[in-house]
Amino acid sequence: MTTRDSSRPTWSRWLPILDWGRRYDREALSGDLLAALIVTVMLIPQSLAYAMLAGLPPEVGLYASVLPLVAYALFGTSRVLAVGPAAVPSLMTAAAIGTFAQTGSPQYWTAAIVLACISGLALLAMGLLRLGFLANFLSHPVISGFVSASGVIIAASQLKHLLGIKAEGESLLHLLHSLWEGLPKTNWITLAIGGTALLFLFWVRKNLKPLLRSWGLGPRLADMLTKAGPVAAIAVTTGLVWFLELNKSGVKIVGTVPQGLPPFIVPSWDPALWKSLLGPALLLSLVGFVESVSVGQTLAAKRRQRIEPDQELVALGASNLASAFSGGFPVTGGFSRSVVNFDAGAQTPAAGVYTAVGLALASLLLTPALYYLPQATLAATIIVAVLSLVDLGMLKRTWTYSKSDFSAVAATLGVTFVAGVEAGLVAGLAISLLLYLYKTSRPHIAEVGLVPGTQHFRNVLRHEVLTDTSVLSLRVDESLYFANARFLEDRVSELVAERTGLQHVVLLCSAVNEIDASALESLEALEHRLKDAGITLHLSEVKGPVMDRLKTTHFLHELRGEVYLTHFDAIRALTPVVASAATPATA
Amino acid sequence: MTTRDSSRPTWSRWLPILDWGRRYDREALSGDLLAALIVTVMLIPQSLAYAMLAGLPPEVGLYASVLPLVAYALFGTSRVLAVGPAAVPSLMTAAAIGTFAQTGSPQYWTAAIVLACISGLALLAMGLLRLGFLANFLSHPVISGFVSASGVIIAASQLKHLLGIKAEGESLLHLLHSLWEGLPKTNWITLAIGGTALLFLFWVRKNLKPLLRSWGLGPRLADMLTKAGPVAAIAVTTGLVWFLELNKSGVKIVGTVPQGLPPFIVPSWDPALWKSLLGPALLLSLVGFVESVSVGQTLAAKRRQRIEPDQELVALGASNLASAFSGGFPVTGGFSRSVVNFDAGAQTPAAGVYTAVGLALASLLLTPALYYLPQATLAATIIVAVLSLVDLGMLKRTWTYSKSDFSAVAATLGVTFVAGVEAGLVAGLAISLLLYLYKTSRPHIAEVGLVPGTQHFRNVLRHEVLTDTSVLSLRVDESLYFANARFLEDRVSELVAERTGLQHVVLLCSAVNEIDASALESLEALEHRLKDAGITLHLSEVKGPVMDRLKTTHFLHELRGEVYLTHFDAIRALTPVVASAATPATA
Repeated sequence: MTTRDSSRPTWSRWLPILDWGRRYDREALSGDLLAALIVTVMLIPQSLAYAMLAGLPPEVGLYASVLPLVAYALFGTSRVLAVGPAAVPSLMTAAAIGTFAQTGSPQYWTAAIVLACISGLALLAMGLLRLGFLANFLSHPVISGFVSASGVIIAASQLKHLLGIKAEGESLLHLLHSLWEGLPKTNWITLAIGGTALLFLFWVRKNLKPLLRSWGLGPRLADMLTKAGPVAAIAVTTGLVWFLELNKSGVKIVGTVPQGLPPFIVPSWDPALWKSLLGPALLLSLVGFVESVSVGQTLAAKRRQRIEPDQELVALGASNLASAFSGGFPVTGGFSRSVVNFDAGAQTPAAGVYTAVGLALASLLLTPALYYLPQATLAATIIVAVLSLVDLGMLKRTWTYSKSDFSAVAATLGVTFVAGVEAGLVAGLAISLLLYLYKTSRPHIAEVGLVPGTQHFRNVLRHEVLTDTSVLSLRVDESLYFANARFLEDRVSELVAERTGLQHVVLLCSAVNEIDASALESLEALEHRLKDAGITLHLSEVKGPVMDRLKTTHFLHELRGEVYLTHFDAIRALTPVVASAATPATA
Repeated sequence: MTTRDSSRPTWSRWLPILDWGRRYDREALSGDLLAALIVTVMLIPQSLAYAMLAGLPPEVGLYASVLPLVAYALFGTSRVLAVGPAAVPSLMTAAAIGTFAQTGSPQYWTAAIVLACISGLALLAMGLLRLGFLANFLSHPVISGFVSASGVIIAASQLKHLLGIKAEGESLLHLLHSLWEGLPKTNWITLAIGGTALLFLFWVRKNLKPLLRSWGLGPRLADMLTKAGPVAAIAVTTGLVWFLELNKSGVKIVGTVPQGLPPFIVPSWDPALWKSLLGPALLLSLVGFVESVSVGQTLAAKRRQRIEPDQELVALGASNLASAFSGGFPVTGGFSRSVVNFDAGAQTPAAGVYTAVGLALASLLLTPALYYLPQATLAATIIVAVLSLVDLGMLKRTWTYSKSDFSAVAATLGVTFVAGVEAGLVAGLAISLLLYLYKTSRPHIAEVGLVPGTQHFRNVLRHEVLTDTSVLSLRVDESLYFANARFLEDRVSELVAERTGLQHVVLLCSAVNEIDASALESLEALEHRLKDAGITLHLSEVKGPVMDRLKTTHFLHELRGEVYLTHFDAIRALTPVVASAATPATA
């Protein structure tokens, strides 16, 4: 995955800023500045909303959007990735901490900081040990199922803010039940504000851009105005609450947000806290990394750039540590903000630094203006953002394509709904790996015959092919390793037992990429069994690396048959009739 | 692994006794009776010794050797497997219970009974759910490493009896340290008895059979007399202790063994006990099953019989439940006793029933004679038996053959020595699976060319082959699944970037046994990337099952290249020069 370009100087491998920084010019500056402005406007409501989702005070969202961006700009390899609080990691933060600290308590914030700290250290360690490939073990269907389920849970968790009621629940079912019970206490003014904001934001997302285009605005400007929708919703509803003093009618508002730059905080070193957060932090790191790398690779490919997954781990690790030491919570490279950054024309990670400056200014100057911001509006912005993550079509697509992929998605979705995000992710990971291992433990073994007019061999059940009763050609469709070693032995014995007049068995090994020590023992046992039955075992098309290893053993000496370079050679030697009737052999 | 013969009546599938029982004749009877006699003589000291190894009173070993044999005779599919207490499961029993009950206490025995009960239920459930294939995930090197390490630990644990001192230790290192500290307190008479017995037993094992043969005895009689070595050692040393009253000089003896048939005991249902024993019981079941099936298959193959692994699970489950309800401890099909049973001419599982009768008589009548039996003699019989299990040559063999198999053995050995049997087994299992997954996540991708004079393609680095600069033929040596999907995308992009004048990339899929949903997305991404670079992607030799599945997707419509039946077809279509210069194509 990561073959680094060895011609690049060592320093810029670890600090990519040395690479792009020295070629920084006016054009890049103007692109970066414009992108930073737009992303800042978008990030202010997002940061507040995701902090609320994570169960933290709103200013923590702002803190997590300053220094982490600078850290990423120093170490990251993507030119356009925008890090900060994101929906799924915020939900996972809430799930990790909610079990042992009260939302809003100082312990809760302390735990969030420790979570970011462990996550940062874990990502950094994985990067230095070049373990980026580990993320590949989360399959696309599992990620898709997990993100969809998280989106549904997040949306459901925000309904209480929209309705102005209280509701709690560790799993989706509990949450829905709790919402249902609270329904009679709905605050109608809150619902009116939140519902209107929600409808407005959905309308903006769907219809504003075409409308603006029809008014003659350029595509880019139309796009930018569309992205500013949440800011408009916030400005209007905040003004409304302030003007009508709706907070006195029970509309929950954000309230006092401390004014000031992110604090410098040394994370707690309480070993018990670290121990209980270790598991959740590792899962969170993995999910954050997968999200970040997917976004980064997609956007890099569009400009024919590349990102280095292992260096991305280092950069995300540094970002999370920066977040931890400045009072923030876990961050990652978010999808929507990175796309906005890209579309707005960001050229280099410097755009992230400018965004950080913008958010620092916002947390220094803008927080008093947020006093009357209704929580229902923030909830509406979250709901609109996360519902776009939900892709239930994946269930149908995987059902058609592969039942085992479908099982993995369905299990991930189901377990996430019933038992929460962490259990869902672990279940998806475990099931997809176990299904893969199960499949490889029962390999497909096909009898093959010669396709007339070629030197090619295919399955007798699928193609019109030529065979001979004295020779059984078996193609083994899997690497031979401990989990399927005994299966091979048994299956071949069975197939042989069905035949009479059989003299030779040829195993066509074109799909055998490895033979481990257990499989070697099974092959030896098979050779003995066949020998007892008066049948000779041969191999054909054994690959180079496999053959190299077999040569170090006694197996090739004990094997009474041959190892043929091609299966056609084997057939020509063992049943010349089939071979000659079918195809001219050599030039 | 288990294709049951559907023509057999249902009942005899589950009760194989119905199958062999109705054809039972005089010849089978005489073979079974002789074998039962010999195995009984061998099992009496073994049962006592393994009970002692497990930390249980000696009579428990006898109890575990009566009803379990009857249960196996009813349900087992092997004609000659002899179940009962065995070395490694006894060690695992001690490890599982030793952490929370005092050796010799009533709680200890209660826990051993529960362990047998859980183990029995687990085996039964696995059998009914047909999960016998799970045992295949323990690779041969891991089993070999585990058994060798257990053998060393067992031998070391018996040294204290040989020296007549006290020593404890959860791991091998602690045990050896404790032995070293106790060394000055060695009881010299005990050591003299134990040491002599040990040397005698080693001599019997190595030299008695050739000696008896040279005296003109038949091979079978010589063999049987050799197997009776432990009985001779026990008789002589017991007599010596009794005659010289050595127990008064500090020689530890077995003492009073309650006389009587195995009791009927309902296992404790204490939920806390069940919960703490669940994990160890599952590991023990797996190890017992693997040992039993290996022995059963080896012996069945010698007589061209077969065993049914899933039915074996049922039989072992029933045996362990029988052991639990008659005051015994976990049992399995042991290696040495089954071989003796086989060599002595056992024809059917009825031999096991006769052996059970023999042992019932022994526990009814013989126990007073065991009063003066020195523990040192039992320790010597255990040491001689287990040292034959130790096979450190496996380390060297796997080192030469495969570094990943070597890592699995070394880890199993090392962790077992340092952290105990359960941790060692889990570590071996986990490491071998992780190494396999790691290898498949970074598949070998070879550039191939035409072998002149054939229609066969091989690696350009290993063979003299023909290629063309406009076509890149890549053979992917692994199924494509989520863990390697991104690797493929990156690796192919890299290989393509190195070429100029490239127009076609053909992926030779003969080793691709599956393409899952994640890999499909990667193939689509690859197709897009190559398209942008003006290169056409083709596939060749896609297998039937893989092709069936691809046809359900849009990928084949989007693919601008072709899917060729054979790679030769692809080369003939794309670079006729290479194809024609090399080989005559069709008849």
